[in-house]
Amino acid sequence: MIDLVKNLATVNRRTKASVIRELLKLTNKPEVISFAGGLPAPQTFPSEAMAEIARRVIKENAKAALQYGPTEGMPELKAQIVKLLREEEGINAAPNNILVTTASQQALDLVGRTFIDPSDPILVELPSYIGGLQVFNSYGAKLLGIKTDDDGVIIADLEDKLKKLRSEEEHYKFVYIVPDFQNPSGVTLTQERRRAMVKLSEQYDVLLVEDSPYRQIRFEGSAPEMLYKIDATRNVISLFTFSKTLAPGLRLGFILAHEDIIQKMAILKQSLDLCTSSLNQLLAAEFLKAGLIREHVGRVTALYQSKRDAMLQALERHMPCEKGISWTKPQGGLFLWLRLPEPMNADELFSEAIKENVAYVVGSAFHCDGGGQNTMRLNFSYPTEEQIAEGIKRLAKVVKDNLPAGPKARAAKAAA
Amino acid sequence: MIDLVKNLATVNRRTKASVIRELLKLTNKPEVISFAGGLPAPQTFPSEAMAEIARRVIKENAKAALQYGPTEGMPELKAQIVKLLREEEGINAAPNNILVTTASQQALDLVGRTFIDPSDPILVELPSYIGGLQVFNSYGAKLLGIKTDDDGVIIADLEDKLKKLRSEEEHYKFVYIVPDFQNPSGVTLTQERRRAMVKLSEQYDVLLVEDSPYRQIRFEGSAPEMLYKIDATRNVISLFTFSKTLAPGLRLGFILAHEDIIQKMAILKQSLDLCTSSLNQLLAAEFLKAGLIREHVGRVTALYQSKRDAMLQALERHMPCEKGISWTKPQGGLFLWLRLPEPMNADELFSEAIKENVAYVVGSAFHCDGGGQNTMRLNFSYPTEEQIAEGIKRLAKVVKDNLPAGPKARAAKAAA
Repeated sequence: MIDLVKNLATVNRRTKASVIRELLKLTNKPEVISFAGGLPAPQTFPSEAMAEIARRVIKENAKAALQYGPTEGMPELKAQIVKLLREEEGINAAPNNILVTTASQQALDLVGRTFIDPSDPILVELPSYIGGLQVFNSYGAKLLGIKTDDDGVIIADLEDKLKKLRSEEEHYKFVYIVPDFQNPSGVTLTQERRRAMVKLSEQYDVLLVEDSPYRQIRFEGSAPEMLYKIDATRNVISLFTFSKTLAPGLRLGFILAHEDIIQKMAILKQSLDLCTSSLNQLLAAEFLKAGLIREHVGRVTALYQSKRDAMLQALERHMPCEKGISWTKPQGGLFLWLRLPEPMNADELFSEAIKENVAYVVGSAFHCDGGGQNTMRLNFSYPTEEQIAEGIKRLAKVVKDNLPAGPKARAAKAAA
Repeated sequence: MIDLVKNLATVNRRTKASVIRELLKLTNKPEVISFAGGLPAPQTFPSEAMAEIARRVIKENAKAALQYGPTEGMPELKAQIVKLLREEEGINAAPNNILVTTASQQALDLVGRTFIDPSDPILVELPSYIGGLQVFNSYGAKLLGIKTDDDGVIIADLEDKLKKLRSEEEHYKFVYIVPDFQNPSGVTLTQERRRAMVKLSEQYDVLLVEDSPYRQIRFEGSAPEMLYKIDATRNVISLFTFSKTLAPGLRLGFILAHEDIIQKMAILKQSLDLCTSSLNQLLAAEFLKAGLIREHVGRVTALYQSKRDAMLQALERHMPCEKGISWTKPQGGLFLWLRLPEPMNADELFSEAIKENVAYVVGSAFHCDGGGQNTMRLNFSYPTEEQIAEGIKRLAKVVKDNLPAGPKARAAKAAA
């Protein structure tokens, strides 16, 4: 073969496999209880209803279901999405505000491809969704982290950064946020901060990319409005997916934005995959039309809530009451975020955890600034409640053993 | 909204919608007989079998069918692909030589994304598939056209260009070809030229990207070997799709290449869409496993052959016997290529054709060098035989009326 490395596009000579992907390989052993994944619980999949819908759609409408469809998306699905947005979010969208995508990973890729030139500054949360960071990096973006707390983005820090970028005449393109039950932290951006962000977007002429895959999976409390709804100037691009509310195997999502943006993105999507599977779009459209989604989301939410409760209980029971150990209490979603006392390093702890047959994702993977070594992401949607109880017990032991004043540290000190 | 144009990535400020896409809008009127599309005939879709397979797969295996799958592709489908390649092409591939893609448009995007830096020279046929040109352009490639005749790429011209590129120390990346029943020309590359191309690829250290969506749709004659099979050095990357042999609505294809290339591309695919629909992969796997594909391809081939015959007959009957008018006689596939006498311009003729309620795609859209104004692509897979007969009659009238020595030219001359 030719010299492959020499022939790769420059950006790919440094592309590495995602940290999560590599770590997941270590967690494949059956004896490992893994909090590292992010998969929906398969028992929630609506298999009976979907099997019947699939049979009917293909039998009665193969001409459309098995054919190419419009790049923008099948009208049947877009009509259902318009209805869903109105009923669930009070958002009045037209079909030409919507681009159906091959799930939200493609939506992220389209955002990157549409806007990013190499070295453009992109603002992201600390921590932020790794799949987003990976895409923006692949387009050569310069990622700038914004500080967050348990209420999401810290507005003053965002404003400081925007002010500095503007004064330096940098070509900053957008702020990327996961406002609802964030992956990885589980944190939700408050209504007040949402308003403040929208105001900043207008003031600094910057787009907000609102990625919201978990919004529908709310256990308690009331939902702040979507940034798209708050914004009157159409500076918000919202990304949705059916992966968490229906099934990831369909690879279905959509982008909601100003029609000029949708039009531009549709042209780019053409060269990505021409169109998203017509069959899968019609399956989702029928599922929505039959009114099955609300009941289904209810079932998913109840299950994940019970799993979150199991994880919170186990943490309270087993984690040492050390200063500096804390975790988020997400009101929805699939993930929870654990912080260790500052000198502790979750990257180094990972191999210890694997020895104890428990796995997580290192928090540093979600930090564009190389920080977050004392944090980790824990998934509660996939493991069973028994696995959660046992896994957290194992994890607590690993943490305890490696506390700055714990037995291992003492042993190391004595040996030194 | 922010100033969109100012905020677009540089490359997108010049991205235009595809010519085909824009022209197709004009052909939507029901009275127009369109040879402009490239859609499979929907009556060939195996709806009964697929409906039953879908019902069964979702009911019995929802845990896999509705879940995320590995980025490289579902093992079940890859196993069937390995078998298919061995039985149909005599190619011994391993599962790690295969990357399942969201149809071959994504395969093209992955090729572009993997290899192209802005200004890299990429060699393409004159004419070449427009979806390929669009992708390579989107990565900023400098497209270089290679001359072709009714046997495909002219080897001497390819060698001249490679020699020149090498002497200029240009970073040329690959040669892109559609060797079987080419889109747009319908031409097939001969066995002798395939061998010569593989030899050149070794001699000039250049990859060959073999895009073969129509290979299975052969009406007559015997198939030359795939370039992948001829090549012993693994310089060939082959792109396949199930869009023509099964159904485009599934958005399923695959890449066959050296495992180092597959591995690199799998990492890039992660950030494109994480994975291709598990459901659709399992549907195709079951369809293949049940041995249904051969019979299905047989049915498709018989139908398209009969339509090709109808088009050839109509052309012989209606097209004027003017010097310079000729057309290809494809041994398979979906398209045929019509050449007009040199001063005639198919771009200008298009509006005349639409007035007569017949449509085609202008040949210039397939030429990276701005040439081909006297050519057009005619699709025979989608229209009925009656539409083909009537449409070619209309097209022949348009051609006759606009011949250099025809009534319109004479009238224009008299008026001048």
